[in-house]
Amino acid sequence: MRNILLTIEYDGSSFYGWQRQPERRTVQGELERVLSLITDSDVALEGAGRTDRGVHARGQKASFRGEFGIPADRIPIAANNILSGKGKFATGDVRIIKAEDVPPEFHARFDCVGKTYKYVIRNAKDPDIMRRNYSYYVKIPLNINIMQEAARYLIGRQDFRAFMAAGGKEMESTVRNIYRVEIFGNPLMGPDKMLTAEITGDGFLYNMVRIIMGTLVDIGAGRMPGNSLPGIIAGLDRRNAGHTAPPGGLYLKKVFYDMEKMINEKELQEGAPK
Amino acid sequence: MRNILLTIEYDGSSFYGWQRQPERRTVQGELERVLSLITDSDVALEGAGRTDRGVHARGQKASFRGEFGIPADRIPIAANNILSGKGKFATGDVRIIKAEDVPPEFHARFDCVGKTYKYVIRNAKDPDIMRRNYSYYVKIPLNINIMQEAARYLIGRQDFRAFMAAGGKEMESTVRNIYRVEIFGNPLMGPDKMLTAEITGDGFLYNMVRIIMGTLVDIGAGRMPGNSLPGIIAGLDRRNAGHTAPPGGLYLKKVFYDMEKMINEKELQEGAPK
Repeated sequence: MRNILLTIEYDGSSFYGWQRQPERRTVQGELERVLSLITDSDVALEGAGRTDRGVHARGQKASFRGEFGIPADRIPIAANNILSGKGKFATGDVRIIKAEDVPPEFHARFDCVGKTYKYVIRNAKDPDIMRRNYSYYVKIPLNINIMQEAARYLIGRQDFRAFMAAGGKEMESTVRNIYRVEIFGNPLMGPDKMLTAEITGDGFLYNMVRIIMGTLVDIGAGRMPGNSLPGIIAGLDRRNAGHTAPPGGLYLKKVFYDMEKMINEKELQEGAPK
Repeated sequence: MRNILLTIEYDGSSFYGWQRQPERRTVQGELERVLSLITDSDVALEGAGRTDRGVHARGQKASFRGEFGIPADRIPIAANNILSGKGKFATGDVRIIKAEDVPPEFHARFDCVGKTYKYVIRNAKDPDIMRRNYSYYVKIPLNINIMQEAARYLIGRQDFRAFMAAGGKEMESTVRNIYRVEIFGNPLMGPDKMLTAEITGDGFLYNMVRIIMGTLVDIGAGRMPGNSLPGIIAGLDRRNAGHTAPPGGLYLKKVFYDMEKMINEKELQEGAPK
């Protein structure tokens, strides 16, 4: 029995999220369909995380088991060929970056030790219609220094119940470990800028990153005091936190299976926002 | 009888181009539907130019006549409200930036003296799935200096028949005046860059900008000699020119009704590509 681990990127704009649903186009559903075709078997894919409708991924991970002859390095080529659709310049909105054979006991979700999410805010005088599904447009000027100061309070092992949307599983623990939060700004024209945040943790509650980002935007916009985060966290009440930032700004950037690699992850270094 | 001039931007990704078509979602069709609703009249829109399927616009112009009471400055608000769809963060893929009353004899197409198109190339080691509909992904490193040198040969009043796709009107003159061509590069990570070209002219033949850009890419990639443009132009034969660059990289940036303004247009100055 082979076990294959995939690295996947997708544009979440026209998917109903990751998770397979009857009659709806989802990333899992689309990938299972194509992988079943190329392996001539019935593929069930296990994703490292379930992204919501409209959320993107640069480095989602998913694994599947089966008996088939196709070498791992041929899987991306064969799958992407079908996924990219017709036409000379056609590119699909989901793409397998890498496929590799992994030990039979490996599981993309259970073996995951953490993830990095990226969140992109376009802080500018005018909206950009071409970016509407890829960033959160905020008109009111954001004070990035205050946001950076506030973000530090998120680091550590804490109960993040205040940042969980209704719909999350009630039973499970809401304690999570956040290892790293960084926010940086890239100038556009004039006072306009792109704000990029990255947050690494061992796990995230339902809508947690989007509520954290909404709260940081409320703080950066002056709608909430800069020192309000410790109180919000301690209160364990969703109503104290800020708004839920929209899904289009959110990217699942990286999934970790190696604790050391995650902890030592290099600081955010980018040129122009991707 | 009032006459209204609109400035419009749209994301061409999910439109079948500008021109009204039965049973297909087009920019003209969508705008006529919404403008008819808000003016309670039967709106026929005249666009300054017809963009093809997949081509975007930052500053398309279109005019329509009719009898209705709504003040011009309320038209964008009312129309965008319908165009943006449902949901708190919903933004439509077409947006009216501005509406103004113009003299009755004004016509968005006939009075147009020229246009500026922008073309965006992503020259990088890896494709970016989020940009697949908004730029032309070219993997092979492009020599921007050679492209800039070559582009100079395009300037002036010349017969551009070699840059017209089949499907263009056979009868009309293929002589056009190109006033300005500029290409600049914005670094991404490592050797990766975004190349942005802008081209201003009194008019463009069918697919002309895309064939020009394909030819410049062929030159920048070393597939065609840097000094080949004068010969291609003089040959008046489409087969001598390069490939047709894809529509997703193309943006109708600006439409001019004032010759002097167009000629004196400031040089391309941008920070990060929009």
